[in-house]
Amino acid sequence: MVQLGLVGLGKMGFNMRERLRAAGHEVVGYDRNVEVSDSGSLAELVSALEAPRMIWVMVPAGEATRQTVAELGDLLSEGDLLIDGGNSRYTDDQLNAELLAGKGVGYLDVGVSGGVWGKDNGYGLMVGGDKANVDRAMPIFDSLRPDGPREEGFAHAGSVGAGHYAKMVHNGIEYGLMQAYAEGFELLEAAKVVEDVPAVITAWQRGTVVRSWLLELLVRALQEDPDLDDLEGYVEDSGEGRWTLEEAINHAVPAPVISAALFARFSSRQKDSSAMRAVAALRNQFGGHSVKKVGE
Amino acid sequence: MVQLGLVGLGKMGFNMRERLRAAGHEVVGYDRNVEVSDSGSLAELVSALEAPRMIWVMVPAGEATRQTVAELGDLLSEGDLLIDGGNSRYTDDQLNAELLAGKGVGYLDVGVSGGVWGKDNGYGLMVGGDKANVDRAMPIFDSLRPDGPREEGFAHAGSVGAGHYAKMVHNGIEYGLMQAYAEGFELLEAAKVVEDVPAVITAWQRGTVVRSWLLELLVRALQEDPDLDDLEGYVEDSGEGRWTLEEAINHAVPAPVISAALFARFSSRQKDSSAMRAVAALRNQFGGHSVKKVGE
Amino acid sequence: MVQLGLVGLGKMGFNMRERLRAAGHEVVGYDRNVEVSDSGSLAELVSALEAPRMIWVMVPAGEATRQTVAELGDLLSEGDLLIDGGNSRYTDDQLNAELLAGKGVGYLDVGVSGGVWGKDNGYGLMVGGDKANVDRAMPIFDSLRPDGPREEGFAHAGSVGAGHYAKMVHNGIEYGLMQAYAEGFELLEAAKVVEDVPAVITAWQRGTVVRSWLLELLVRALQEDPDLDDLEGYVEDSGEGRWTLEEAINHAVPAPVISAALFARFSSRQKDSSAMRAVAALRNQFGGHSVKKVGE
Amino acid sequence: MVQLGLVGLGKMGFNMRERLRAAGHEVVGYDRNVEVSDSGSLAELVSALEAPRMIWVMVPAGEATRQTVAELGDLLSEGDLLIDGGNSRYTDDQLNAELLAGKGVGYLDVGVSGGVWGKDNGYGLMVGGDKANVDRAMPIFDSLRPDGPREEGFAHAGSVGAGHYAKMVHNGIEYGLMQAYAEGFELLEAAKVVEDVPAVITAWQRGTVVRSWLLELLVRALQEDPDLDDLEGYVEDSGEGRWTLEEAINHAVPAPVISAALFARFSSRQKDSSAMRAVAALRNQFGGHSVKKVGE
Repeated sequence: MVQLGLVGLGKMGFNMRERLRAAGHEVVGYDRNVEVSDSGSLAELVSALEAPRMIWVMVPAGEATRQTVAELGDLLSEGDLLIDGGNSRYTDDQLNAELLAGKGVGYLDVGVSGGVWGKDNGYGLMVGGDKANVDRAMPIFDSLRPDGPREEGFAHAGSVGAGHYAKMVHNGIEYGLMQAYAEGFELLEAAKVVEDVPAVITAWQRGTVVRSWLLELLVRALQEDPDLDDLEGYVEDSGEGRWTLEEAINHAVPAPVISAALFARFSSRQKDSSAMRAVAALRNQFGGHSVKKVGE
Repeated sequence: MVQLGLVGLGKMGFNMRERLRAAGHEVVGYDRNVEVSDSGSLAELVSALEAPRMIWVMVPAGEATRQTVAELGDLLSEGDLLIDGGNSRYTDDQLNAELLAGKGVGYLDVGVSGGVWGKDNGYGLMVGGDKANVDRAMPIFDSLRPDGPREEGFAHAGSVGAGHYAKMVHNGIEYGLMQAYAEGFELLEAAKVVEDVPAVITAWQRGTVVRSWLLELLVRALQEDPDLDDLEGYVEDSGEGRWTLEEAINHAVPAPVISAALFARFSSRQKDSSAMRAVAALRNQFGGHSVKKVGE
Repeated sequence: MVQLGLVGLGKMGFNMRERLRAAGHEVVGYDRNVEVSDSGSLAELVSALEAPRMIWVMVPAGEATRQTVAELGDLLSEGDLLIDGGNSRYTDDQLNAELLAGKGVGYLDVGVSGGVWGKDNGYGLMVGGDKANVDRAMPIFDSLRPDGPREEGFAHAGSVGAGHYAKMVHNGIEYGLMQAYAEGFELLEAAKVVEDVPAVITAWQRGTVVRSWLLELLVRALQEDPDLDDLEGYVEDSGEGRWTLEEAINHAVPAPVISAALFARFSSRQKDSSAMRAVAALRNQFGGHSVKKVGE
Repeated sequence: MVQLGLVGLGKMGFNMRERLRAAGHEVVGYDRNVEVSDSGSLAELVSALEAPRMIWVMVPAGEATRQTVAELGDLLSEGDLLIDGGNSRYTDDQLNAELLAGKGVGYLDVGVSGGVWGKDNGYGLMVGGDKANVDRAMPIFDSLRPDGPREEGFAHAGSVGAGHYAKMVHNGIEYGLMQAYAEGFELLEAAKVVEDVPAVITAWQRGTVVRSWLLELLVRALQEDPDLDDLEGYVEDSGEGRWTLEEAINHAVPAPVISAALFARFSSRQKDSSAMRAVAALRNQFGGHSVKKVGE
């Protein structure tokens, strides 16, 4: 059992602390929310840990993570190890690693998948960094990952950045998977040939080619709301789908499904579309096709 | 100069009668709308024409056209020629041709492009059928088509059905062209890097690679409504885009642009999307991501 | 335990006979391949069954199935039940049901998912038809479907046609899921940021959001061939993806992911693309961009 | 008439020099290719121009342009004006403008469209920068742009960067337009319903909704090679399509058509696709579907 500092006790970090403590590790948490925090400040957290320290950062990707890493860089000492488990863009990792390397502090980037279910099911982990650091953090990884063979829920993906890169692609795939189910659901709902749509989707859980964990979640959602009509079809995107598409562009990899899934989200958030106003205007211009005027 | 019966005097047929009369042809029109009709019934129209007759049908595609052709089939005589100039599906043409052939009545299918501008600019024409029938109707085609070399505004595309097939593909392409401009317009509007979006689009009319007649129509629309915000982004589809996509499927031809343009129209007409409700539900299930509930 | 006639003993039917016999049912099979067939002809098969008979047809969709159903229609008697378990288009089902209803023979359509793994794992089943017929065949369904709650591997989807409709949509989704993983795989291979791509994909099997049965199959494939370079990227399509897209068109349901997955298969089979030759020609025309001439 | 330094005398710059000289301007060109260059070096070019100088840079976008601007920055003096007419990314413009502003040198970015045809037809121009600088360069712009009203071939799009931004979007649209025609062409070729495909496309030039300059170029290409089978369907992309898509991502603008057109180009350059190998592997795994092995 090892000692770990854990910065960020939101939906993900809070559950991870639970899982790690249940496994017998000593976890000292820090969060700006004093109700969940174990320490009053990052400095207090660092003081509470025995050197050489291991600190896991689990705060929102982007500015919050970059700032937390920078602050910890000032507080940590040679031989310490910092792990970024958030959904950071992989290009941040090299910067973080270099910043910390100047002080002799090690760095790992970890893509963590599993959402709120990870506390009980374990989290899928993809790690980037040096093997020595990976080995050092392995007791933590082994307690966070699901039961079963290590290689089925954990991978040392490569050097610094590779963990977040793997997670980015994972999320891009996730967009595509979700949209595939969603299109099928919409078609079943629209065609009305299948009389009991939730029953059919429920029956896909065993034996079929499309069975998956996401499908099981869709079944759960349909159990609560069989037509999903309590929800609006409004879908945010967190950034990883965009980055995946940008990487596809950079490497000239065709990504029609992942891009279609991303664009469907963009469209879902538009009350009205400039593009479609332009198409309506064109049809009106050449064909005298009737158009909907605002307010009609 | 020849004599022509013209059935259907809506936006297209009315203008075509004007253009043909201006060219010196004798046109006897029929429309259910007595205010524009020259004859009281199809039978009266047929009686008013000297045999061998030539009748152009310009009514809405589908049931209306099929029924008109059938009724005319009963009224026409051996040696007459019927021309379907509507946006019929090409598969209807073989049926129509066979029906009429049984009575010795000839048949041509004509794809007519140009919209409300055709009256002054002329109409692009794509014709399917026997060469003898095409030659017989050529005085009409020559007056309907734009000035300039015949082959730049008229084609004998092939045997029966080929005219409507060519028009179907023409319209599929049209969907793609319009959507391409529309996406560019939306990006210019969203990015706000270009300060005067209509000025830029106006400047694309001469010299650029993207100049086209559709672009000129977009410029006209922007002159009337610079942000196109009098319109809703709600776009109908007339059927030809769907058929084009079905044909692409039948022939295993990838059609990502034409399908994307069609789907954008479908989406534009949805108040809310079942598919995107499913994606929202899934994100909520695994990530505890917040969702928009109806009424919030 | 019940008696079943089973027509078609290919990859699917052969395994189903094994599974049903292992469950204790009496299965009399017929196949044109005498090495696997239990009877010498359809007539012999029908004679070998006690009335009222139950016959499951598991032959290739389309002409083969339609012909088999027609032949059996001549051989069967009032009170018999015919089940089409192939991948037939749902529009065939109504025709089959009416044909058989004229003789008092019942009809069920069943979508069967699970591939070659079904023999051991059980098959996911989606059934269309009357409840009485469904109940009658339930002992067979219960033995074919996977262990676990019936509703997680079996659904009575609705009236005749609904089973195949559900299976069609299932396969459309499957196209999208496969393409999503495939795009992610290609990006990981192309970017080379992740050093051990198979290890990362293997690690997605537990705990992650993208875990699924298809993912497990991808892991198996990578174990045999880590870069998948023994294969050509040439992918057939069986028809169900096309039908799904046609249904989406019919119901004005946007299906960008399913269509993209289908088009990727179309493209994979083209040695060279007319469309891309046209784009190359255009670039050459306006920009003097160099093009690849055939044979260069 | 004014004096202009012109750096870069390739396909575009060479023709522009011709057009400007024909209009009566004094153009001193520089190119590394001594056969076309009027001066031996950038320094010599700068010396040959009377202050305040105006220099137009027309070299490949990216490193070549950035380096040329930097070198000229060292050579130019307060009051001079540098114009980048290449296909630079709009984000470079702010950097260039700031670099030059430090020396009192003005900067304009110009998107230039029209390809090799611009020499005779004139070039469509989109300009970013201060109004005073735009006015100063207007004699040059007026000679480069096509005949006709200035606003139909020239726009002052906004401040620095806006010219290249407008050109980037223009090119993104161009990708979509080309792909739309290309898909229609492929379908016509594949379906063989239309017997004379080039005749139909030729006939779209007058009167139709799809008429455009690109269509005229397609007609020219078909005149030289009616099936386009002298070419390979291999299409490069120059960068602007990628940037357009990245901007669409940044602004959450759905761009299904532009992305599909870009991905079609990516696919056209792949001998074999990792993604499709993965799909083939999956089908083989679950269905025992036959696959093409390499070398078969």
